[in-house]
Amino acid sequence: MKAYQKVAELAAELAVIQSAGAVLGWDQETYLPARAVEHRARQLAWLGTRGHALATSARFEKALEAAEAQVADLDERQQANVKQWRWRMERARKLPAKLVAEESEVTSRAKAAWAEARRGSDFSQFAPHLERVLDLARRKADRWGWQSEPYDALLEEYERGARTAQVAALFERLRPELAEIGQAAVERSRQRTMKRLPGSFPIEQQQILNREVAESLGFDFAAGRIDTTTHPFCTTLGPADVRLTTRYNEADFLSSLFGVLHETGHGLYEQGLVAAEFGLPSGEAVSLGIHESQSRLWENHVGRSEAFWARWFPRAAELFPRLRKVKLEDFMGLVHRSEFSFIRVEADEATYDLHILLRFGLERKMVAGELAVADVPEAWNAEFEALFGMRPPDAAHGCLQDIHWSMGGIGYFATYTLGNLNAAQLYAAALRRKTVARAVEQADYAPLLGWLQKNVHQAGGVYDPNDLMQRATGSATNAKWHLAHLRRRYVGA
Amino acid sequence: MKAYQKVAELAAELAVIQSAGAVLGWDQETYLPARAVEHRARQLAWLGTRGHALATSARFEKALEAAEAQVADLDERQQANVKQWRWRMERARKLPAKLVAEESEVTSRAKAAWAEARRGSDFSQFAPHLERVLDLARRKADRWGWQSEPYDALLEEYERGARTAQVAALFERLRPELAEIGQAAVERSRQRTMKRLPGSFPIEQQQILNREVAESLGFDFAAGRIDTTTHPFCTTLGPADVRLTTRYNEADFLSSLFGVLHETGHGLYEQGLVAAEFGLPSGEAVSLGIHESQSRLWENHVGRSEAFWARWFPRAAELFPRLRKVKLEDFMGLVHRSEFSFIRVEADEATYDLHILLRFGLERKMVAGELAVADVPEAWNAEFEALFGMRPPDAAHGCLQDIHWSMGGIGYFATYTLGNLNAAQLYAAALRRKTVARAVEQADYAPLLGWLQKNVHQAGGVYDPNDLMQRATGSATNAKWHLAHLRRRYVGA
Repeated sequence: MKAYQKVAELAAELAVIQSAGAVLGWDQETYLPARAVEHRARQLAWLGTRGHALATSARFEKALEAAEAQVADLDERQQANVKQWRWRMERARKLPAKLVAEESEVTSRAKAAWAEARRGSDFSQFAPHLERVLDLARRKADRWGWQSEPYDALLEEYERGARTAQVAALFERLRPELAEIGQAAVERSRQRTMKRLPGSFPIEQQQILNREVAESLGFDFAAGRIDTTTHPFCTTLGPADVRLTTRYNEADFLSSLFGVLHETGHGLYEQGLVAAEFGLPSGEAVSLGIHESQSRLWENHVGRSEAFWARWFPRAAELFPRLRKVKLEDFMGLVHRSEFSFIRVEADEATYDLHILLRFGLERKMVAGELAVADVPEAWNAEFEALFGMRPPDAAHGCLQDIHWSMGGIGYFATYTLGNLNAAQLYAAALRRKTVARAVEQADYAPLLGWLQKNVHQAGGVYDPNDLMQRATGSATNAKWHLAHLRRRYVGA
Repeated sequence: MKAYQKVAELAAELAVIQSAGAVLGWDQETYLPARAVEHRARQLAWLGTRGHALATSARFEKALEAAEAQVADLDERQQANVKQWRWRMERARKLPAKLVAEESEVTSRAKAAWAEARRGSDFSQFAPHLERVLDLARRKADRWGWQSEPYDALLEEYERGARTAQVAALFERLRPELAEIGQAAVERSRQRTMKRLPGSFPIEQQQILNREVAESLGFDFAAGRIDTTTHPFCTTLGPADVRLTTRYNEADFLSSLFGVLHETGHGLYEQGLVAAEFGLPSGEAVSLGIHESQSRLWENHVGRSEAFWARWFPRAAELFPRLRKVKLEDFMGLVHRSEFSFIRVEADEATYDLHILLRFGLERKMVAGELAVADVPEAWNAEFEALFGMRPPDAAHGCLQDIHWSMGGIGYFATYTLGNLNAAQLYAAALRRKTVARAVEQADYAPLLGWLQKNVHQAGGVYDPNDLMQRATGSATNAKWHLAHLRRRYVGA
């Protein structure tokens, strides 16, 4: 126990360093003056260096070894932590410092080149950088080790225990059905007469509504806040300090509200973790695919439901009087509006996953060496046309739209759709509890949140995502609930 | 040169650590959720420990010794830095770690006890803590060393090179004249008919005016911001990152505006330092008495002048239409309103320094052992009556009002009045330049700011405050300009 305490203390110190960096990162996105960026980079680099040094230090290793020697005396959560620390240390150690430095340099240049290339919609400017990023990704995968294909090692960085072949099988099942659901959803939206909300929506009023909604879902504003940024996100600065951000469109209050619902889902997960284990794997989110399940569950399953709006539409109409002339039925048509778009981040619930299937397929081929960088734009456009029945007008609306590759985030995209699948599956499992289902019908989400806290949040990183899903729902991640949900909402019974 | 570069790099690293702490401190005062305080303290303690370790490290000392060995090859600014680093290192080394830890514990308890004692206006609750703080202050003074009296060593912590006897002599000269000026100012205000501004002042409009004013004085919003806090302050998070705060009173826009003018004065000083020397003494503010001279100069000499309001009153009346009925003359009566108050932070320009004289005198006696803690309330009230002609109704309006003693900040108060003296003296010196004087008459402050940058800001910590004043104005800090200014404004020619 004493040996375990020692390594837990070092992990807690590391979390203090990393969370201090998170404060600086949050400030950079929200309030940093324009000319202050350079010094902020220096502050972040210093913290990053200290954190890395501690995580790979001899004293951390020694403490870990001592804890491993007494692992039989530990409880399940402690054993899971010891296992995770070992996994992280081995993985960190397999990357030589030179490779880490090279990656930082390559991605720093790639990000700048990508932004420039996207502005001019000129893939050739980004291509040599993508080559380098891919080369690095393959070398990292080889160092980390893999069994079936190198992509496995990359995917695992974001989704513990996931395997490419298994994700591909899930996605294969989705593909034909999603294409059909998307078509039906878009067709249905086209037939609706109301295309947009009337009037404009003052930001102050939007903020009132967003805050009331987030609070009613259980977000604790004594341990968190909402600020404004260009790109919404959720970040954790401490065990009782979860910061959400959103952006406002005066012509459409739903844009900021659904943004807040999404980030509130992330925030409820972070606030639901075991605070006393902050900085230990057991007190951390387990994976991106589970994190995204929480944001999608609250945004889509709760926030786009009829019961939710039966409660909140009257309140919205108080704050935005022009809504009083709108029929709830027409309003729900807008909430469930669907159309094909070239841009992933603008995609609606019914068509979103098609964007992910496309990226996952191309990434896998690129990493395997089956798709050359020069051929990416054409492969993208051809696949896009196959899925959506339309062709991107240029690379900015095609393979240049996302920042992920330029940041070296290969293996990341799949977790968005895994999040959708997990969301539907968890929501269905929660609703099998009658107390949860009855409350949800009344737009009372306290029992739902309680179920998620018990079955997902408090588990932290103790179980691999698939084991967590198995325990919470009775089976590993499976596509059927998500497909059933989309059919019910977008195609009709 | 190479040896100097080495120590300069370590000092820059220390500044990165300390400025990261400043980001966390700023966030704590502005946006931190209530429950996040505990973890924030952990983050700040970690940064504080790392900073202290670096500042007192063997490698810093070695690098400094190497630079000292080659000091003849350095320029004036570099030599000043070497001298300052040595002074700081010796001073830090003279305090054993045990004493530093004891101080942190004593003041942490004293702060809590003071807040509680002030709430109940019960000095006996705070008295034992003040005993401990004083005991610590005397022990620190003895370790640091002093020549005439222990208070010298404490004063020097805030005002480099200042001596108690010299400050006492300045204050002695002020005392009878300030008492007379205060009486006259208060009497004059009593005779004015307009006692307050009509109407209410929406916060959004106040923010527009404050920002326009700060910008017109030269505050660079690409390297700074204004946020809202209970207690206004200015803090520097990096060489191009100066954060001001203010608070709003809907009944009185002057409250936030003068707060912003004051903090803008601090901010212009910070923005005027040599950015390339950030973290070196030559790129830092030299003392509190010089820092306060900048805030008081912009708040009082500029912001309460007729020329300033000839330009800004029309703009204020655009933003606050109720002001259109107010005559500029009556408005200036409010700007120059004076009354005796029990509370220092509510005091106006004409009566403020009396509060400081009282505190300085009591502190000096306490440290010298000439005034027992038990006798402080009565000594305070007697002195207050002698200066203001009225007696505080209770300790909360008397010796319990300020936080400084509970924080161990003995020696601090004098710098407020030194700031006032320096402000008047610097302003008078600047106005001896005709280009400055002519522009100021037109409410154009660019030449004034240029003069301050050249004569005060860019000097950073190269000269001791009195030498800086000598170079900039022709004499060391002297009371006559401040007295002349107050007489002109509050008593009449």
